[in-house]
Amino acid sequence: MRIILIGYGIVGQGLTQILMRRRHEVIRDFGLNPKIVAIVDRRGAAVNAKGLDLEKVFLVRKAKGTVAAYPECGRLGASPTSVMELVEAEVMVEATSTNVKTGEPGLSNIKTAFKTGKHVVTTNKGPLALALPALTELANYNKVYLRFSGTVGGGTPVLELAKKCLEGDKMLRIRGILNGTTNYILTQMAEERVTFEQALESAQKLGYAETDPSMDVDGIDPACKVVIMANWIMNKKLTLKDVSIQGIRGLTPGMLEEAAKRGNTIKLIGSVDDKAAVKPTEISKHDPLCVSGVLNAVTFESEFAGAETIIGRGAGGMETASAVLRDLLDIKHNLSDKLLNL
Amino acid sequence: MRIILIGYGIVGQGLTQILMRRRHEVIRDFGLNPKIVAIVDRRGAAVNAKGLDLEKVFLVRKAKGTVAAYPECGRLGASPTSVMELVEAEVMVEATSTNVKTGEPGLSNIKTAFKTGKHVVTTNKGPLALALPALTELANYNKVYLRFSGTVGGGTPVLELAKKCLEGDKMLRIRGILNGTTNYILTQMAEERVTFEQALESAQKLGYAETDPSMDVDGIDPACKVVIMANWIMNKKLTLKDVSIQGIRGLTPGMLEEAAKRGNTIKLIGSVDDKAAVKPTEISKHDPLCVSGVLNAVTFESEFAGAETIIGRGAGGMETASAVLRDLLDIKHNLSDKLLNL
Repeated sequence: MRIILIGYGIVGQGLTQILMRRRHEVIRDFGLNPKIVAIVDRRGAAVNAKGLDLEKVFLVRKAKGTVAAYPECGRLGASPTSVMELVEAEVMVEATSTNVKTGEPGLSNIKTAFKTGKHVVTTNKGPLALALPALTELANYNKVYLRFSGTVGGGTPVLELAKKCLEGDKMLRIRGILNGTTNYILTQMAEERVTFEQALESAQKLGYAETDPSMDVDGIDPACKVVIMANWIMNKKLTLKDVSIQGIRGLTPGMLEEAAKRGNTIKLIGSVDDKAAVKPTEISKHDPLCVSGVLNAVTFESEFAGAETIIGRGAGGMETASAVLRDLLDIKHNLSDKLLNL
Repeated sequence: MRIILIGYGIVGQGLTQILMRRRHEVIRDFGLNPKIVAIVDRRGAAVNAKGLDLEKVFLVRKAKGTVAAYPECGRLGASPTSVMELVEAEVMVEATSTNVKTGEPGLSNIKTAFKTGKHVVTTNKGPLALALPALTELANYNKVYLRFSGTVGGGTPVLELAKKCLEGDKMLRIRGILNGTTNYILTQMAEERVTFEQALESAQKLGYAETDPSMDVDGIDPACKVVIMANWIMNKKLTLKDVSIQGIRGLTPGMLEEAAKRGNTIKLIGSVDDKAAVKPTEISKHDPLCVSGVLNAVTFESEFAGAETIIGRGAGGMETASAVLRDLLDIKHNLSDKLLNL
C-alpha cells in the first residue's frame, strides 16, 4: 500500500515513527505493507516511488525545517495537488491542521485525493465538520474510502467502538465529554473552587489550552466531533451549522457547588439523538461518563447491547497517529471484504 | 449462513429474537443471511433445513417445555452430536450453561462442531477457561473460526474493543472489574457500610447472586474472563489453573473505610501482564475503572494509543445475544477477508 502523507507535524511524524517501529508486525499480522512514497509539508515534498527512508526524512526535517531538503528526493515548493497528481499511491493521509472556517487546506487536499482515485485517512476535523455529508458522497462516487478515526478521541477508538464493535445493533443515542481542555477547566473549577478565568490560565500554563482558547471553551471543537459521530455512526447528514452550541464561559464556581450538593457536577456534554448539541450539562458523579482532568468519555446507547462508555485521553500526536494506522488497516480489510459477499 | 443453535435459554432465545427483529437490516447492511436450521435443547431438537420459524419455536418451547415438540420438525431425544453430524450448517452457536469443572456439555459440543467443519460462536466460559489454547489450535487445524465475544462483558464489546479497535498497536496490560455481582457487593459494603454477608444477601434478593455464590465471590468467574482475555488479546497460552485467584470473602467494611480515607476503594480486579491474577485491589476513586453497582469496566494499556477504559453492564440475555450476532458478522467478514491479501 503506497501512501502520500500530507502534513508533517506531530501526527505525521508520529505516524512515520509507528511505521518504523511496527512495520514488521503490520506486514506479518495483517498482510499490510505500508510504504510512504511522498511526504508534503508547507515548503515542499520528499518523493520516492520505492518508499522514503523515514528515519532520514525525520532528520532532514529537523535539521533543515522542511522535508523538501531531502537529497535527490526533495522537491522544494511542490504542492499537495501536484504530488497527488503525479505520484502513484493508493492512499493519502491528511494530517494538516484544523481550520473550521474554510476547512483548508484539508478540504482541497481530500477532494484532490478523491479525484485522483486515492483513499483518504484524515486527522483533520475542519473539512469533516463543514462538509462530511458531501465528502462521504464524493468518496462513494469516486469509489474510495474516507476514514478519520483520529478526529474523535485521538488514539481512543471512539468511532471504531461504535462502528465495528456494535455491528448489527442499532445506535439510539450518543453522549460524551469530547474535549479535554474544557474538561480540565471544569474539573479545576469543581475541585479547586477557582473561577473560569483562573482555571483557563492554569490550562494555558500546562499547554492544554491555546492562547486563543475559543475552539475549546466555546464548544466548537466538541461540536466538530458531534458532527463526525452523527454522520459516521448514526447516518445523519449534519454539518457544524446544525449543531446547537453553548460553551463554558458562563459557568461559575457557585453553579458547580450547587450541582455538587445534589451529588452531581457540570460537564460540557456533546450529544446526538434527534438533535445534535453541545452544552454544559449537570450529570451524576456516579455516571461512568463523569471523568476528570483531560480525559474524554463517550457513552453509546444501543438497542440490544445497552449502554457502553469508553474513556481515554482525547489527544496526543503518537496516540492520534495510532488511529491513522488503524484506519489504514481498516481500508485494507474493506478492500478485501468487498470481493466476496457470503 | 446456516446456523445450529445449541442451548435455548435466555441467550439462545435472545438471539432468535434479535434475528427476528433485525433480519432485514442484517441482510441489507452486511450481506449476512442467517438461517437457523436447528435448535437443540436438553430434551431434543427442532430441525428444518430451510430455516426454522423462530416465532413458532419460541411458542412451542414455552407451551411444551422443549423445542422437540415442534410439529414435523421436532426430534425428541436428538443429541447435539447427531444434529451436528446430520444437519448441514456453516456455524454452531453454543449457548449452554457454564461448568468450570468439566467444561461440559459445551466442550464436547465445540469439538464436534470443529470435527464436522463448523465455525463456532459460544457464550460459554467453561470450555474456554479450561482449554482455550487447545481449542484455538483445534479450530486452526480444522480451518474454522472460534468466537466468544459474549463471554466477557455480556453485550459490552470488551474483547472486540481490544482486538478490532487497537489493531496494529501492542497490548501491554489489561486490568478490569469483570464481575457485576462482586462489584455490587463491594459497592454496597463501601457505600452502606454493611458486612460482606449482608451485602451478599441483598445481592441474592435482587437476583444478582446465585444461591451458591462461589463462582462470583471466590473469583472464579472473573478468572475465566482473565483466561479468555489473556489468550485472545495477548496471545498467552493460559488456562484457569494458571491464574492466581483470591475472592472477596475476607473483606470487611473496616478495610473499605481505611481505603476511603486515602481517597481509594477496594475492587475485585482481574489483570493480565506477565502474570494473570484476580484479587481485591485498592484503586483510586478517580480511576476510570472505579465504577459502582453491577457495572463492569476494563482498562487496556497499549503501546501507542495509551490507556482506554470500557464500561458497561457485564450480563443480560439480550445483551449477550447481541454479542453472538456480532460474532456471526465477524466470521462472515473474516471469510471474505481471507480471499484477498493486498
